[in-house]
Amino acid sequence: VLSAESVLFGLGVAGVAVFSISGVLAVGRKELDLFGVLVLGVVTAVGGGTLRDVVLGLPVFWVDEPAYLVVAAVAALGTAALERFVAVPRRAILLADAAGLTFFAVLGAERAYDTGAGLVVSAVMGLLTGVAGGMLRDVLAGEIPLVLRRELYATAALAAAVTYLAARVAGLDSVVALSAGVGIGLALRLAALRWQLELPVYRVRD
Amino acid sequence: VLSAESVLFGLGVAGVAVFSISGVLAVGRKELDLFGVLVLGVVTAVGGGTLRDVVLGLPVFWVDEPAYLVVAAVAALGTAALERFVAVPRRAILLADAAGLTFFAVLGAERAYDTGAGLVVSAVMGLLTGVAGGMLRDVLAGEIPLVLRRELYATAALAAAVTYLAARVAGLDSVVALSAGVGIGLALRLAALRWQLELPVYRVRD
Amino acid sequence: VLSAESVLFGLGVAGVAVFSISGVLAVGRKELDLFGVLVLGVVTAVGGGTLRDVVLGLPVFWVDEPAYLVVAAVAALGTAALERFVAVPRRAILLADAAGLTFFAVLGAERAYDTGAGLVVSAVMGLLTGVAGGMLRDVLAGEIPLVLRRELYATAALAAAVTYLAARVAGLDSVVALSAGVGIGLALRLAALRWQLELPVYRVRD
Repeated sequence: VLSAESVLFGLGVAGVAVFSISGVLAVGRKELDLFGVLVLGVVTAVGGGTLRDVVLGLPVFWVDEPAYLVVAAVAALGTAALERFVAVPRRAILLADAAGLTFFAVLGAERAYDTGAGLVVSAVMGLLTGVAGGMLRDVLAGEIPLVLRRELYATAALAAAVTYLAARVAGLDSVVALSAGVGIGLALRLAALRWQLELPVYRVRD
Repeated sequence: VLSAESVLFGLGVAGVAVFSISGVLAVGRKELDLFGVLVLGVVTAVGGGTLRDVVLGLPVFWVDEPAYLVVAAVAALGTAALERFVAVPRRAILLADAAGLTFFAVLGAERAYDTGAGLVVSAVMGLLTGVAGGMLRDVLAGEIPLVLRRELYATAALAAAVTYLAARVAGLDSVVALSAGVGIGLALRLAALRWQLELPVYRVRD
Repeated sequence: VLSAESVLFGLGVAGVAVFSISGVLAVGRKELDLFGVLVLGVVTAVGGGTLRDVVLGLPVFWVDEPAYLVVAAVAALGTAALERFVAVPRRAILLADAAGLTFFAVLGAERAYDTGAGLVVSAVMGLLTGVAGGMLRDVLAGEIPLVLRRELYATAALAAAVTYLAARVAGLDSVVALSAGVGIGLALRLAALRWQLELPVYRVRD
């Protein structure tokens, strides 16, 4: 049977890898050198969780477990190498990114909640863990973070975190709560991509 | 009578609200979605204090007291809604922003000083608390932070913090020191806006 | 004789000063006001070390020892003043920046390693301490960080950190290890500048 701990570690490693890949692919057109690509991949992958741990006053996860760093670095370099020979379909990138987003959102909410934070703070930490890495990547690459403008992106992260927390408060098993959170978040993000759902755009009147 | 504590809480809530409002209004022309507007308003409102607490190694204020987050979110969404019906005069925005800047500057200096930091570090923390939220907002919105170029903006935050600290060192009551800091900072910033006072612009010779 | 402690303090002060100078010179063409110049110089100088200490959960170095802040501020203002009368040769700036980069890389690796971090994390902390201040400066100034694109820049920081750590693991004296790290890093960076060595540029196929 799956323990909550092994599910968490698996989701964490998978999230770090797919976010690193999506980070590398997203900045491909910027003429960075190989080291810059590596840095951006790793920042995308670990940025959100780092910010969460620092704000919560917890030990930063990759300082405790450097394997996350190694996975992020290998995924980034592998992507850069592979990408020379194979065109990665945009659809696959978006899917990987959606998976990373929702994995990290439930993991962030879980870590905050299990260390004693309240529900509002835990939900915000889920959101932050999901979106902050990609925002850092975009800022470093000189762009307005897509997160702030893309179809239900941050919304899906928040939905995943809130679903996870609601399941926990309802007394459900941790693995069930994790699955529910990932399921809802992923469904929302993929539906938004498929039918181009969007929140209303905000615009100051001129 | 007013206790220092209730004055601090009142200033903090007011500062968070006006900074969230100014954050939303400042990014109005960027075609963000509603969620992006919410995120930028909240980041503007709590960014400076978050950075201060993290650097000082203190618990982050909105993790301890999530009411600040809620106030920032409500202020951001209320502004986005209201703004569809009423044109907010630019003068009102600048005034609110100046109030937030000086409130946060004295609060930041106060928090650092009361937790044992020295005078130089406390003054820098006041400055940081006042200006960092707006800098984060500008960076996320893809702009060079206005703080770095605007009329006596950071200068007013530093003046507010230094005035507060000088009053404390002189043995004055905490509420008096807070009032003096806000008064001096606000006066300086409003005078700069009224008469367009500026520090000399720095320019490398070509 | 030189104690490791006095060498560390000397390298730290020198690194803060040269990074503050390079920060001011790098943003000279942005029409910032004098306060903005001061802020960017100081952020460039202390940003990397601040991030390192926050991620490691250590007290931030300039909160413990505000002299670093004062040195950075004086160096920034002195550079802004001097630059009106003397054209600083580009070669001198690059040399100073290379020195700051490698000083900070070994210092960052040293601080992480001596507080119990493993080798991977210590090497990453050296890299981070060396490059993060300049990255922050570039982001605040509205540019894609040069670090991500420049000739063996981050590579030199990593080489300095790894050399230092290898020397420590091999049981060499701390001062020897510091000198070896600075020597290797500086040699690599200066060679890259002299002969324009670069890592391959990464580019997504169109």
